[in-house]
Amino acid sequence: MLLLDQKNPTQLYVQLYEQIKAQVLSGKRPSHSKLPSVRELATVLSTSRNTVENAYQELLAEGYIYTRPRSGFFVSNLDQEIGTLTPTPKGRPCTRLKERSFSFRYDFHPARLCPECFPAATWRKLFTESLQEYSLHYGQYRDPQGEWRLRSGIRDYLELSRGVICDPEQIVICSGLQQSLDIVAHMMGQHSKRVAVEDPGYYLPRKIFGNHSFEVIPIQPGNEGLDLEQLASSNCSAIYVTPSHQFPTGHVMSIATRLKLLSWSEKSGGIILEDDYDSELRYHGKPIPALQGLHPQGNVIYMGSVSKVLSPALRISYLVLPSALLDRYRMLYSGYFSTVSLLEQQTLARFIEQGYWNRHLRRVRTTYKKKHDALLLAVERHFGERAEVTGQGAGLHVVLGLADQPYSEKELIERAAAKGIFLIPFSDCYASGSSDSNYLLLGFGGMNPEQLEQGIEQLYRAWYT
Amino acid sequence: MLLLDQKNPTQLYVQLYEQIKAQVLSGKRPSHSKLPSVRELATVLSTSRNTVENAYQELLAEGYIYTRPRSGFFVSNLDQEIGTLTPTPKGRPCTRLKERSFSFRYDFHPARLCPECFPAATWRKLFTESLQEYSLHYGQYRDPQGEWRLRSGIRDYLELSRGVICDPEQIVICSGLQQSLDIVAHMMGQHSKRVAVEDPGYYLPRKIFGNHSFEVIPIQPGNEGLDLEQLASSNCSAIYVTPSHQFPTGHVMSIATRLKLLSWSEKSGGIILEDDYDSELRYHGKPIPALQGLHPQGNVIYMGSVSKVLSPALRISYLVLPSALLDRYRMLYSGYFSTVSLLEQQTLARFIEQGYWNRHLRRVRTTYKKKHDALLLAVERHFGERAEVTGQGAGLHVVLGLADQPYSEKELIERAAAKGIFLIPFSDCYASGSSDSNYLLLGFGGMNPEQLEQGIEQLYRAWYT
Repeated sequence: MLLLDQKNPTQLYVQLYEQIKAQVLSGKRPSHSKLPSVRELATVLSTSRNTVENAYQELLAEGYIYTRPRSGFFVSNLDQEIGTLTPTPKGRPCTRLKERSFSFRYDFHPARLCPECFPAATWRKLFTESLQEYSLHYGQYRDPQGEWRLRSGIRDYLELSRGVICDPEQIVICSGLQQSLDIVAHMMGQHSKRVAVEDPGYYLPRKIFGNHSFEVIPIQPGNEGLDLEQLASSNCSAIYVTPSHQFPTGHVMSIATRLKLLSWSEKSGGIILEDDYDSELRYHGKPIPALQGLHPQGNVIYMGSVSKVLSPALRISYLVLPSALLDRYRMLYSGYFSTVSLLEQQTLARFIEQGYWNRHLRRVRTTYKKKHDALLLAVERHFGERAEVTGQGAGLHVVLGLADQPYSEKELIERAAAKGIFLIPFSDCYASGSSDSNYLLLGFGGMNPEQLEQGIEQLYRAWYT
Repeated sequence: MLLLDQKNPTQLYVQLYEQIKAQVLSGKRPSHSKLPSVRELATVLSTSRNTVENAYQELLAEGYIYTRPRSGFFVSNLDQEIGTLTPTPKGRPCTRLKERSFSFRYDFHPARLCPECFPAATWRKLFTESLQEYSLHYGQYRDPQGEWRLRSGIRDYLELSRGVICDPEQIVICSGLQQSLDIVAHMMGQHSKRVAVEDPGYYLPRKIFGNHSFEVIPIQPGNEGLDLEQLASSNCSAIYVTPSHQFPTGHVMSIATRLKLLSWSEKSGGIILEDDYDSELRYHGKPIPALQGLHPQGNVIYMGSVSKVLSPALRISYLVLPSALLDRYRMLYSGYFSTVSLLEQQTLARFIEQGYWNRHLRRVRTTYKKKHDALLLAVERHFGERAEVTGQGAGLHVVLGLADQPYSEKELIERAAAKGIFLIPFSDCYASGSSDSNYLLLGFGGMNPEQLEQGIEQLYRAWYT
């Protein structure tokens, strides 16, 4: 039976449509049965013909009913398995799991930035300017490589500050390292699907290449920071490296090893994936120049991002492709679109153009140096001979090596957590996941010097009292 | 010879470092040769010991030199092939190719939005609010599935307006359809790498699955809008479809075909990839409900985006994964991060929460209906019997079918271009690229009614005078 409720806020024709639809789906109105004519039904329901006509047109558009000229409307012949389909549970309660939240008082995650450092007022000003200037461009998809203006700004910065030599045509704006590596993985699809990574190293490249069905070969440090003989015999078509500040050890790849790596690349055609993730943050002397600048015409894909200097929540990174790979990139990605918001790209372009980037860089370098120094002092004060810090002087984390290891890695982390301290396991850095090392990662970006001092004190207590 | 220039803005120690580095790289200072002591060199250059010490420390950090206790500094043994490396061309002019620009007066691209419709003032206001509320969260990487608040808002909208039944836990915020499909392709990597697509259909899914080494099987419309027998025999593990508004033909997939497609999916385990790209834009009656809602527990991956209603330059889309696939998603993507800016996600979340999304939707529906009607009228007026429009009543484009085809597709497009009219070839929609059809795509979103009238008049002249 069909009923229309004048008090129901749902339009009358929609009420009618919903009811007939339910009858058709449930089989109450059999296939090919005739529906009442528009006039009849309007009379029965005391409603206008328009209401019935509109409901029938909807049912017709979605194929619930069909029409035969001069005969009226009939129920369509639907699949017999309808009964197995779940009816739409309108208005059912939704299980809203709580958003995961950190309840740790001391967060030593190695990629936390200073929460107060984001230049919100400047960002708002430049965002508003971009919104005005580009107002007529929101209606269009944009260049897959990203905004030219941003690429130009990044080119100038990279040449001056990182020694990277390239043209804006070689730059691709990406939404984070993972997208950069997705592109790289696609471009390498024609080569052997074997890629080398540093071991210990960052877990994400291993994971991403694994998801692209690559065989991931961990390369040990050896005597030179990277075992080049192991690399040469591995038959890999690429290697992911962090030469300016090895993650997690903090080592700088020596010029001799860089040159040997370039020579491997020249001989084997292998691609060097240089992740320059945090090299701007160096607290003594000048930043270490990028490997790419040693051989700009070589097989080096340079990768950078704003995640360590500005914010990892903005999701802006960039690839610098060697000229020789541009044709392949364009073949694969023609018809794609940029994955980064036009507004954020233009805001960042202005941020660089108007000198804010360099000013911000100087400011955060000072801030992080203070945090870095406070951490080292606190470790010295509380751990004394019981621990040694390595990989200091740059970035957002150091490595803590325990002289004697009172507990397993798992227990160390659990005892820390019980005191409200968050640590990520060093074993995540090993391809094997081996956790028998006595190392721990201490990120210092997210806490102020007082919190660092307290956190380290608590950490000592968690393990030694 | 080493020279320090007090007038050079580069710091003295950096000047010294650069010069010694160049000498080492060029071989002018041979391997293992001793460098002058800090004291000696400071005297020779009339500079402070500090300057020399800092330069030596940089060279040491990068491995250009090494030190032996009580013996001093020595040049490292570098690879012999240094000579082949290109020196860094500092300050070289940069070939800045001009940004590609459209010089067309009439742009009939099927995915152009109304340039004046972007709600810039509201967006700025909500962006500023998000910037304030989340100021302490810019220092962290965010959930790979996206902000919970945005997912909740999208869930509510989808249930009410699209008939999609899901939980926010099933939603993944992505940076456009291409990222959505990248995720889908990874998730399907364990199945047979064969995917079906509609033919004619949107080119991008074909391209993306191809880049993921899938075999792409085009499925013809047949009698039911989709040849289900061809699909059943194709042995595909998934099919990409646009049921609410087929691209490019504009057809609505009938309920009978939807049920048969679901039944194929149940029997074969095949996944239905439902791209609901522009279904909000329907100009008569109510939007066609999504296929997902017919069987929310089935193998349907629902995909939507803000590209057609709000802006394709924002790069925000979403996936709704079936509960059964969530474990696989989490296994593949644990440790990844969201690819969409926190600020833009929070801005969109507020836009939905505060009712702007629904208001905006009503507004643009009215705007596009006017443009749509103006286009149909102009075609009727200028082409008369010479053309027929199909796929009208929804979305941002219609299909123009020419009764007799005066020129080849290529010539039609070139003659249009000569009059300042931009058209994309209909043949792009065919997997085969076959271009012997008499169809053309006419997008109407980017132009106002007057431009549409003029553009169609010019188009007629381009082809028939």
